[in-house]
Parts: sequence; structure tokens; C-alpha cells
Amino acid sequence: MVKTSDRINGIANSPIRKLTPLADAAKARGVKVYHLNIGQPDIRTPQAAIDALRHIDRTVLEYSPSGGFLSLREKIAAYYSGYGMSYAPDQIVVTAGASEAVLFSFIACLDPGDEIITTDPTYANYIAFAAAAGVRVRTVLTRIEDGFALPHASEFEKMITPATRAILICNPNNPSGTLYSPEEMRMLAGIVRDHDLFLFSDEVYREFVYDGAEYLSAGHLSGVDGNVVIFDSFSKRYSECGIRIGAVLSKNSHVIEGVLKLGQARLSPPLLGQIVAEASCSAGREYLDPVIEEYDRRRKTLLKGLEGIPGVVAAVPSGAFYVIAKLPVDDADRFCAWCLSDFEYEGETVMMAPASGFYFTQGAGRSEVRIAYVLEEKSLERAVLLLSKALEKYRSR
Amino acid sequence: MVKTSDRINGIANSPIRKLTPLADAAKARGVKVYHLNIGQPDIRTPQAAIDALRHIDRTVLEYSPSGGFLSLREKIAAYYSGYGMSYAPDQIVVTAGASEAVLFSFIACLDPGDEIITTDPTYANYIAFAAAAGVRVRTVLTRIEDGFALPHASEFEKMITPATRAILICNPNNPSGTLYSPEEMRMLAGIVRDHDLFLFSDEVYREFVYDGAEYLSAGHLSGVDGNVVIFDSFSKRYSECGIRIGAVLSKNSHVIEGVLKLGQARLSPPLLGQIVAEASCSAGREYLDPVIEEYDRRRKTLLKGLEGIPGVVAAVPSGAFYVIAKLPVDDADRFCAWCLSDFEYEGETVMMAPASGFYFTQGAGRSEVRIAYVLEEKSLERAVLLLSKALEKYRSR
Repeated sequence: MVKTSDRINGIANSPIRKLTPLADAAKARGVKVYHLNIGQPDIRTPQAAIDALRHIDRTVLEYSPSGGFLSLREKIAAYYSGYGMSYAPDQIVVTAGASEAVLFSFIACLDPGDEIITTDPTYANYIAFAAAAGVRVRTVLTRIEDGFALPHASEFEKMITPATRAILICNPNNPSGTLYSPEEMRMLAGIVRDHDLFLFSDEVYREFVYDGAEYLSAGHLSGVDGNVVIFDSFSKRYSECGIRIGAVLSKNSHVIEGVLKLGQARLSPPLLGQIVAEASCSAGREYLDPVIEEYDRRRKTLLKGLEGIPGVVAAVPSGAFYVIAKLPVDDADRFCAWCLSDFEYEGETVMMAPASGFYFTQGAGRSEVRIAYVLEEKSLERAVLLLSKALEKYRSR
Repeated sequence: MVKTSDRINGIANSPIRKLTPLADAAKARGVKVYHLNIGQPDIRTPQAAIDALRHIDRTVLEYSPSGGFLSLREKIAAYYSGYGMSYAPDQIVVTAGASEAVLFSFIACLDPGDEIITTDPTYANYIAFAAAAGVRVRTVLTRIEDGFALPHASEFEKMITPATRAILICNPNNPSGTLYSPEEMRMLAGIVRDHDLFLFSDEVYREFVYDGAEYLSAGHLSGVDGNVVIFDSFSKRYSECGIRIGAVLSKNSHVIEGVLKLGQARLSPPLLGQIVAEASCSAGREYLDPVIEEYDRRRKTLLKGLEGIPGVVAAVPSGAFYVIAKLPVDDADRFCAWCLSDFEYEGETVMMAPASGFYFTQGAGRSEVRIAYVLEEKSLERAVLLLSKALEKYRSR
């Protein structure tokens, strides 16, 4: 066996990977498992998207342009225009999901040994992509007590070294569901401008904003056109995670040129996904508005349920479809495993993502779990009941 | 504008990128351009694959498993079994084309600063992926006079340094069309075994072997299970380059685990592409045999045509669908550009890929072009006539 790379061996396995065999074993015992652990929506993909596949009339499923079809990039530009942001089609590169957007942007913008600053907790796959790109991650802590708001600018500035090249945020945030305020976004603009850093802004949950909260994209910030790189995706917006269509947007032409070089190396983004994505754009607000209302109802149902469980503290999220909850347990990794291996109530149990997998700092968030509200209301209510019964039993062991 | 990375700025633009605007301008002048420059086959995708899309009955286009559907990996395993190679489904990771297979394997196996050895000329995108992974490339020269055969083992060993971690081949080869003999493959096995290196073998053209030549995959080599990593793809085999489905195969469990970590970070390979790929497997030899016969006829037509042009030397290829030809010109980059900007014959011209884009060594292969025989015979004959007329006129300027 020839030895694999240090960078890959350094990527930790997600705690979810340890839980999956336990969930499979529970199911094999006949226990029904409610999945609050994953970001796979149950919402229907727009019918127009499915129809586009059903009516495909191609005889050769050939390469598409490396940057994506112009017609798709025009539709993405039009969508941004609806948000008051002006991106030309040649400021957009279509990627295989936001995942490829992140990896290619890291490689195009950063050299091995460079550093990026992100929040703690953060989307776990950023850590893997940073390791893949040979890039060091530093974090600023955000706290459940503050609703995972960004800390003061000085906390970011403390983390800046001569190797720092970028600040990375996810807004609305996965895993916390936090939406950053216009003030927080303008603070970040000030930092990246003053220190000549990239501002990587993952905005795949842009549509999922609740309570009429004011939303400011990194693309709305003024004076930082050369700094801002936006990651976007069709996955969550149109419940089509499987098509693998995302995008990088930037007004920094060097970034677009660099990402496009990698795009050319990998030849083209998925052809069929682009066909689906284009058709989805035609579904528009008529599709999106009821979906967002549905998530909002689920969010309220979940929060109400969590409030009723003694000792549970949840950070009220204004965006995305996740909540981080602090549980009255010492070790949420162990509790989540126990829920699958040792607990059932009326033949059912619940699977959650231990928040430890989202924290870069060892030992942080030990009592926290991430709950995705991607189940319909009745199932969510039931899952919360199961959580409350599980906590009761776990604490009285 | 924040500065992008040195590694991305170091990736040279392909000479084809400079030719594309010239081809567009020629077309705008009403000149018909025969494309011998690209690897996009005109062959029909299997009907079963198109039908699978037309009959899709999903309501949510959701994530698939990070390593690819088990059912697809079982079909890939069965295909390899037909070639006398035994790969279990858990020794296979489904990727977004062979491109992702290459990039993920480089990252999983190599650290920044590590070195790989490949042939010169080589598939240009390997160079880009190596730069992306922070990996240094060293090359052994192969020559048109030798049909681009591999040099003696000592030429490889001269290139080995303490940083060397892998030998990378493409077999059958893009850009040369060369098929490596069993003896050449066994020589490579000896080197990687002796020096504890990975043997990365890109075998996406495996089906395209002519003249009854004996084919030995890296997967057939004995005693090197821990060294061999195979890259494969559905793109060329079933003329479905756009679906972006490839695979990494290895009996080195650490490699599979590492590639899978990256697979999990990017969540899943394309769902729709996997559906098409699975359906394509059912097309089998009934689809593949006539396709290979068709390419063989084209190959013969092309070679016969090239032989008839004074001063042109072609390396007779036994595989893939490319030929490298040496032209009686000093600078094929300039000649290829001139064919598009200054030449036409009866309103038509020809576009070829200058071989310089495939050579890592500066200045090598200056008189050579790569010709892809992805046009039907009549068009190929016409394209060769245009090349002969162009050479005649170019040399008598």
C-alpha cells in the first residue's frame, strides 16, 4: 500500500459517518428513524424541471462550454438583477454545485500555506476543501448565546497574519441558520478592504430568509468589487441537490479567469443539470414563495417544540433551514449515538447531527446539535417529542 | 482587485484558446471550418440512455451517495470483470468525469511539493490539475519516430527524486493514440514496485483499440495492487461526455478512503448522469462494437490521407481517436492560426490542435499537430484535402 497524502489523512471523518451504521442497525431492528441530520429537502423539484428532462430531444449528450451555457448564465444574471445586483454573464462561471465553486475558488485565489478566516462553527466541508487546497483555516468564535452573530471586527483582525488572504462566510448560515445583518456585512467589507483580502460569501440559502429580515448580499456591498467572490447553487433553492449545478460570481476578472482555467481543465459542468437548472428558473416566485412559507411554518413548529423541552436552548434562526440547539447533556456526540443504539419510543427514534462536526476548535459545541427542518410539520412535531422523551430517559439513566 | 494565486497564474492558456476566436471569425466570414481539434465524438449516445431520461419518474432530484449509487458501482465492477479484472464495488468511487477522478486522486495521494512523472507529450489538463494540487510535474520524452512508445526504464529512473510519488500514464494515449504494450506496462509495474510509487493509469479510451492489438490494463498487472489507481469515464465509451460520470478504481483502500473523503466534501456525483450511465451499461457490445469499427474506418481513412501529403509524418495510432502528425512547417501554432485567419479553399478550412499544448517541455513538438478523427469519413477526407491545400499554399507564400 503506497501511503496517501498528509492533507487527506488530516481531514477528520464527520461524526455523522459514525452515526450512519447505528441508524442502519436501528432500521434493521424495525425502528423508524426521523432524520433531522441532513440538508436534503423533501420539497418537490419544479415540475418544469422534470418536464425538461422528459422532453429531451438530443441524440448526443455532449460537452457544454466550460463556463456553462451562456443562456444559463444570462438567467443567473437576471436572477441577481432581481436582487439589485448587476453581474454580467462573463462574471459568472457555472460549477458542479457550490462545492466545486468553493474548491475552485480556493485553488484559484489561494496558494498552499495561505490562510483563511471563517466562523466557528462553520460548514464542515469548507475545512475539507481548505485541506485539499493546502490552505490553513483560522476561526472566530460565534456563540449560541449571541444567536451566532459575528463578533466585533477586532476579533477578526486578531486572526489576521501576513499569510491571511480571505474571510469566508456562509449567509444565511449553515449550520446555525443565522442571517448576518447589514451592519455585520458592512463590517466585513471594511476589513477585507483595509487588509486586501477576498470575501468568500456562500449564499446558497439566500432565498430562505424569515420574519421579513433585511438581507444584504456580499454582492450588495460597495467598494469591494475586487474582493467579493459569491458561491451559489440551485440545489436548495429548487430542491434539486442531485443535479450538481452551482456558480461562482465575481467582479474580480482575475478570479473568474482563474476559476475558468480550472473549469477548462475539467472540461464542462453537468449538461443535464444545466438543462434542469434553466427550466427551474422559469418556475420563479410562484414556486419559491410557497416553499419559503412552508419552511417558515416548519421553523416555527420546531422552535415551539424545542422551547417546550426543559434545559434545551435554541438559537432562533432567521435563515436557511437549520437550528443549533444546546441540549442538557455533556456530550452530544454520545447522546446522538445513544438515541440510535439504545433508545426508542413506540418503535421510533430521532437522528441529529452533533454540532462538534461543525466546530473547528476541538471540544467546542460539545452539548450542541444541528437540526435540519426538512421534514413536514407532523413529522417534525413527532421528532421533537421523541427528542424530549430521549432526553428524559438519557438523563435518568 | 485582490491578487489570485501563483498556482493558477502559472497554468498556461491552451493554444486552442487563442485559435477559437480565429475560428469564430472565419465562420463569421462564411467559411466552413472542419473541426479536427476536439475530442467530442459525433457518435450517437445509446438510445437506452436517452430513454432513461425521457422516462424519469422522480419528483425530487435529490443527492445520491457520495461514492455513487451501489447499483452503478456494481455495473462498473461487472464491466471490469468482463476484462478479467476483479474490482469490488467498494474499490470504486464514482466521480464527475475522469477529470474529478484525476484531481481527487492527486489531492488524496500527493502533498504540495510532491512530484509526479508523466510522458511528454501528455494530456494537457493533467498539468493544470497538478498545478491545482500544488504538485510538480516531471516528464520523460516520447518521440513521434518511435510511435510515442515509452522509453527505457532508466529514463524514468533518471527523473525519480526523493519527492517523486507517482507515475502517470494515459493508455491508450491522448494525445498520441499510442497503446502501450504488455512489456511497457510490466516495465512500469517494476518501477512503481521498486520505488514505492503510485501508478496512475487513465484508461478512458480502453475500448478504442485497433488492429487486434493486445491490451493490458494497469489493473491486470500483478504485485502492484497497492500502487495502481485507475481513472475511467463513460464520456467517450458511450459518447456521453456531457453527463460527467467517471470513476476512480483502486485496491489500495487508503486511496479509496481518501478519494471518498473528498467525495463526501462535494456531497455527491451527478444524479442524472448516473441514471444515464447505468442505462448505457445495458447497451453493451451491441452498441460498442459498431462504434469501434466506425472509428477504425476513420482512422484508416485519415492515415491514408495523411500519407498522401508530401512532408507529413504520422505516428500510426493503435488506440483512442487521435493522431499526432508532424507537418512540414516550423511552427504548427502559427500554421494552425494561419489556416483559420488567412486560408480557405472553396470556402472551407480546417482547425487542428497544435501539439505544443500537449508538451510540458518548452519548444518541443513545434511542428506537430493533434488530429482527432471524430468526423465521419467523407468529412475527414475533405478535411485532409484542405490540410494538403493549406500546406501547399503556406509553403509557397
